[in-house]
Amino acid sequence: MGDTLDRETHRLIASDKVEGTAVYNPQNEKLGTIANVMIDKRSGKSEYAVLEFGGLFGLGSDHYPIPWDMLTYDTDKGGYMVDIAKERLTGAPRYAREKAPDYTDDYGRNVYGYYGMAYPLL
Amino acid sequence: MGDTLDRETHRLIASDKVEGTAVYNPQNEKLGTIANVMIDKRSGKSEYAVLEFGGLFGLGSDHYPIPWDMLTYDTDKGGYMVDIAKERLTGAPRYAREKAPDYTDDYGRNVYGYYGMAYPLL
Repeated sequence: MGDTLDRETHRLIASDKVEGTAVYNPQNEKLGTIANVMIDKRSGKSEYAVLEFGGLFGLGSDHYPIPWDMLTYDTDKGGYMVDIAKERLTGAPRYAREKAPDYTDDYGRNVYGYYGMAYPLL
Repeated sequence: MGDTLDRETHRLIASDKVEGTAVYNPQNEKLGTIANVMIDKRSGKSEYAVLEFGGLFGLGSDHYPIPWDMLTYDTDKGGYMVDIAKERLTGAPRYAREKAPDYTDDYGRNVYGYYGMAYPLL
């Protein structure tokens, strides 16, 4: 979907550029790529970047909602950094692409809680 | 990219669901569809929804960055409402898909200013 210069600035990034961006951890392991971003319609706040891995071309892949604030963009890597060990993802909240949850507040608290993050106030 | 139940909740929406969503004005005119969302990498704030119209399948279409806060989601319509008369778009900041601007702060002030919106503080 266009190259970096077209879709990215220092401060802003296009949603369709985030989608497909690689995610690494400090151990320099690639955890997967971003499937999409879950945005609060009213405030515009991105609350989750949904990490996707496994499967082929998204088929059968697992989707892991990650609190947006856990991700930092690494300009050098051209990808996101998140401090999550691969093993930590084993028990993490996940869903199959075709079975996305309702993202209720209970679900959100569960996800944020799993990563030790405070669930954002509405 | 999946149906509403899969990609949407009352409060959150998936970025790849926003992309392609129709935009209407109070005169009930369809202004176009959302091409993508420009997100602040650090804060996660969606600053612009980029309205696209004209062209064929995105080719040769014009892209109009609209301050996110100008859009409200209309659940009944299943689309976004924005109070912009079609004529108002005539002189609005726009770019060709393949020639996205750098979204500098000067550009941002120009866009927000055009719509009489205060440019968000960094």
